[in-house]
Amino acid sequence: MQSDLVAALDIGGTKIAAALVDGGGGLLARAQRPTPAREGAEAVMGAVGEVLAELSGSPMWGRVTAVGIGSAGPVDASAGTVSPVNVPGWRAFPLVERVGEAVGGLPVELVGDGVAMTAAEHWLGAARGHDNALCMVVSTGVGGGLVLGGRLHPGPTGNAGHIGHVSVELDGDPCPCGSYGCVERIASGPNIARRALENGWRPGPDGDVSAAAVAAAARTGDRIALASYDRAAQALAAGIAATAVLVEIDIAVIGGGVAGAGDILLAPLRRALHRYATLSFARRLTVAPAVMGADAGLVGAAAVAARRG
Amino acid sequence: MQSDLVAALDIGGTKIAAALVDGGGGLLARAQRPTPAREGAEAVMGAVGEVLAELSGSPMWGRVTAVGIGSAGPVDASAGTVSPVNVPGWRAFPLVERVGEAVGGLPVELVGDGVAMTAAEHWLGAARGHDNALCMVVSTGVGGGLVLGGRLHPGPTGNAGHIGHVSVELDGDPCPCGSYGCVERIASGPNIARRALENGWRPGPDGDVSAAAVAAAARTGDRIALASYDRAAQALAAGIAATAVLVEIDIAVIGGGVAGAGDILLAPLRRALHRYATLSFARRLTVAPAVMGADAGLVGAAAVAARRG
Repeated sequence: MQSDLVAALDIGGTKIAAALVDGGGGLLARAQRPTPAREGAEAVMGAVGEVLAELSGSPMWGRVTAVGIGSAGPVDASAGTVSPVNVPGWRAFPLVERVGEAVGGLPVELVGDGVAMTAAEHWLGAARGHDNALCMVVSTGVGGGLVLGGRLHPGPTGNAGHIGHVSVELDGDPCPCGSYGCVERIASGPNIARRALENGWRPGPDGDVSAAAVAAAARTGDRIALASYDRAAQALAAGIAATAVLVEIDIAVIGGGVAGAGDILLAPLRRALHRYATLSFARRLTVAPAVMGADAGLVGAAAVAARRG
Repeated sequence: MQSDLVAALDIGGTKIAAALVDGGGGLLARAQRPTPAREGAEAVMGAVGEVLAELSGSPMWGRVTAVGIGSAGPVDASAGTVSPVNVPGWRAFPLVERVGEAVGGLPVELVGDGVAMTAAEHWLGAARGHDNALCMVVSTGVGGGLVLGGRLHPGPTGNAGHIGHVSVELDGDPCPCGSYGCVERIASGPNIARRALENGWRPGPDGDVSAAAVAAAARTGDRIALASYDRAAQALAAGIAATAVLVEIDIAVIGGGVAGAGDILLAPLRRALHRYATLSFARRLTVAPAVMGADAGLVGAAAVAARRG
């Protein structure tokens, strides 16, 4: 029997997904539970235990050599703990130890969800072949991860690449993180919608006030909707440019629901990058949409466990 | 005869310095010329040739195994060229090749001056023993470099850590680099002095309008002078915090003439870091003054050549 699979866990505020992943990134068996995010620590761990139990019922389980976890952050990979903002029952929860017990002592690797998505895009997606890359998810929040010198750079605690909380307006609006003018405070989906509403945009008869509805309005030429995406693009561009001057990346890969707006976001983003990424070594930077989709977290967690990211 | 020395070159807009450096960072022989910064490419290279010729007259020259260069930026280590802003005669000047010819084919390593200073502080200075560090020079400009995972991170072109051109005010004042609201545009010595003068600060009878004179006024309690340093500290803190959330550093080392203001800069900087470095993994960050002084560029260039940074 071959020993060539890893088990991957993707832990978010709404669902806990797991899969057996082969050496080519294929998902061979899957399990999923809603995250009991408002319950206590053991209830959430119970859901993790259930998806692992389901996977371990697979005849392929004996081939599993390691477990990779990508979790909503913050995480602390050095301590093996997680404290996801949207799962208040877990604070410094010893997830690596608990998962290790549940899988009979297999090695367990933990990274933040932005780092996991980055590992997937670098292994098999839009950042493949790029030695220095920033990958990001623009959605309800803004997260990310880095590839430096050809290798995933999770940082000592597994949180590196956390571009959503780079401040690009030092006198800007307070961010829930405690800082001011963070990229996420300007460019996340809820903030794109909030800004459009504040500036007078009104939803259609369906009452949809999501960032996707603002994007639809922008596609019809609505100026307020376009301006809200432009502002988000500026903040993202300033954050990407900051990353480029700090660590020299040659590509920024952008995924997540807000990136689904396509050129409504990407066209002003490319324009804004010319404004902020001006140094010779930062000007070569390109922007590409993510390609790994909803399974990026699982594939990336597998890549980390198999050291393929 | 031992083969244990490297030759180091520190190339700036005002002087070209060189030294033979031993395995402990000791400078055993030195040479220096003013940079003929307003002359043509060959005149500047002539000055480099002179300092190398002077060093090669040393009886120790036969022990030299490699040459390290730290140069004012931008540099392109991948192409072996330099284009220092303050040396207009050098644009994409093939410095690595020309120095290689001058030293009979010894290996030559090139990095930016901020990266060289970082190598020195990591090898023998304030960042020693830190696996993840940002070192910066706050002076006429603002430069820097990174240590990641225990190793110098020059980036593919040798410019990584260029914190002076991180934008922390996306609608801020235009920076000579072409971007807006850069850390350097707010926190460099000339900008500290400019802001104080614009806000009504007046120099003493000696007419000194340098950042050091503003620091002296701040020490006597001058509110405008204090406010100008506070603003510089905020910009530096936002840039340092951005670095911490992007790559996870645990120390920021600050050198250069402006850092000579001591607590006039460092006290508000530490306060501002609490404001901007809020995520759990960024809060552990400390700030320390640089200790390697004026020889940091030479010691760091030697460290790079000897792969000790």
